[in-house]
Amino acid sequence: MHFADEIIELCREKGSRLVVGLDPHWSLIPESFKNKYSPDQRESLLFDYFSNVVDASIKAAVMFKPQSAFFEQFGQSGYRALQRLIAHIHSSGGKVLMDAKRNDIGTTASAYATTYFGSDTLPPVLPSDALTVNGYLGSDGLLPFQKCLDRGIFVLVKTSNPSSGELQDLILNDGRSVAEAVADKVQEMALSTQGRSGYGNAGAVVGATYPDHMKALRRRLKNALLLVPGYGAQGGDDAAITASFDGEGMGALINSSRGICFPKDFEFNGFDAVRSAALHARNHIQSLLPN
Amino acid sequence: MHFADEIIELCREKGSRLVVGLDPHWSLIPESFKNKYSPDQRESLLFDYFSNVVDASIKAAVMFKPQSAFFEQFGQSGYRALQRLIAHIHSSGGKVLMDAKRNDIGTTASAYATTYFGSDTLPPVLPSDALTVNGYLGSDGLLPFQKCLDRGIFVLVKTSNPSSGELQDLILNDGRSVAEAVADKVQEMALSTQGRSGYGNAGAVVGATYPDHMKALRRRLKNALLLVPGYGAQGGDDAAITASFDGEGMGALINSSRGICFPKDFEFNGFDAVRSAALHARNHIQSLLPN
Repeated sequence: MHFADEIIELCREKGSRLVVGLDPHWSLIPESFKNKYSPDQRESLLFDYFSNVVDASIKAAVMFKPQSAFFEQFGQSGYRALQRLIAHIHSSGGKVLMDAKRNDIGTTASAYATTYFGSDTLPPVLPSDALTVNGYLGSDGLLPFQKCLDRGIFVLVKTSNPSSGELQDLILNDGRSVAEAVADKVQEMALSTQGRSGYGNAGAVVGATYPDHMKALRRRLKNALLLVPGYGAQGGDDAAITASFDGEGMGALINSSRGICFPKDFEFNGFDAVRSAALHARNHIQSLLPN
Repeated sequence: MHFADEIIELCREKGSRLVVGLDPHWSLIPESFKNKYSPDQRESLLFDYFSNVVDASIKAAVMFKPQSAFFEQFGQSGYRALQRLIAHIHSSGGKVLMDAKRNDIGTTASAYATTYFGSDTLPPVLPSDALTVNGYLGSDGLLPFQKCLDRGIFVLVKTSNPSSGELQDLILNDGRSVAEAVADKVQEMALSTQGRSGYGNAGAVVGATYPDHMKALRRRLKNALLLVPGYGAQGGDDAAITASFDGEGMGALINSSRGICFPKDFEFNGFDAVRSAALHARNHIQSLLPN
């Protein structure tokens, strides 16, 4: 099935726009949980913790977004935990948006696409429904990821971090910002992969921390799903969340990572605290949909 | 030792500016070599082939640049082959420039830095002397990689691919191109990490396929080492190679991947063909140094 169409349908069915980010920040995993494992059981620890997060939040979540870097830093144990976590999400009926921000040219971009989406000759090693990518290299770095209708990409447009403006907010001689120029490319790609929902399989990452940019970018990205980081821990703005949706309250997916994976009351309530945090985030985001 | 200083010294000692790219394009690995391995021996095949390339070219090469994507696509076998290859390069006295084009914000960028350079609490899983990175997210995505003086980063500035101009050549309202604006940031970072050689630990990727851009960027990047892809198979320009160096013939590293790893006469001469190709590339590049 067409990626964007399936996501839009899931948003409707679940009454949710929430993406749960899975970020194994080592220092944030509760001590009471870590204490149950010996140092050579890191793979089990990572898999057990985050598969429990998945189970506790799957009713509220449209997708899960593992942050590749936090798994990669642990080497083989992180890699195997990530593979098992992906299998667990898929066998639970969930969707995987891999946050790896990959980027390269031509045949090398194809090799990354193979890693996440598979190819004619190789199965995917980290099977994902969608992938974040960086568009600095232009379209021949992005097209290899756009071969299958049932997979999506989210191109970095306006990121949520404090220094994102250093490059992304620079103004071109035609009046657009650099982020807007990237957005226009993404919109072209979204239009050319449009499904019945009106949305295409090329989406854009636009942070919730910059409300004014959100409004301008939503207008330019009419056929692109937005992936919106910065909700919760990073202090994203409610107005930016509202502005990320189309007139029917569709077209954007709001990510929360730390606020759901590491709730303050974990020590008392365990993964029930994760369940509550996910439901709370889902409901809060639904309350921000435009009328 | 300071990364850039060590590289400049190696360039002088070896009389070379050559970086050998290690790209396991499956279809380019000679059939006569692949035939010796069964399908479940992919790790050995990859390690054996590319460690032989390293042995045959190490006299001519200043660094080796494994392309991460081509290893990642093979999953565990590619991952283990890459780990063994890194160990082989280091035990042979060689330097590893990992071409992974990583990029993310804050703590996530730190997790990538941990993967390649290690941290206070974790050893690196893919120990590298330098890493290619993508600077679209601004300086708080780059600074986590710049903690150690003995490691380098190469930020994508002007890439060698046909569509690199879509974003990188756009002109800002101050007259600079987007690539030049990124270059100016890299130059700042190079200046703040400058060693005795005059070069800093932040370098820039500038393709050999755009000679005019090379001249302009070399002028802006006075204290940055340039990593120059596009020589050989991609049709890079001799004038661009010459323009990549400073007045003393230093400050640039020229990458060749396919032309050295997969020479046409491999079927007749095996890894002696690799040795000849590396020496030939080294000598040709030396002949292009400015007088």
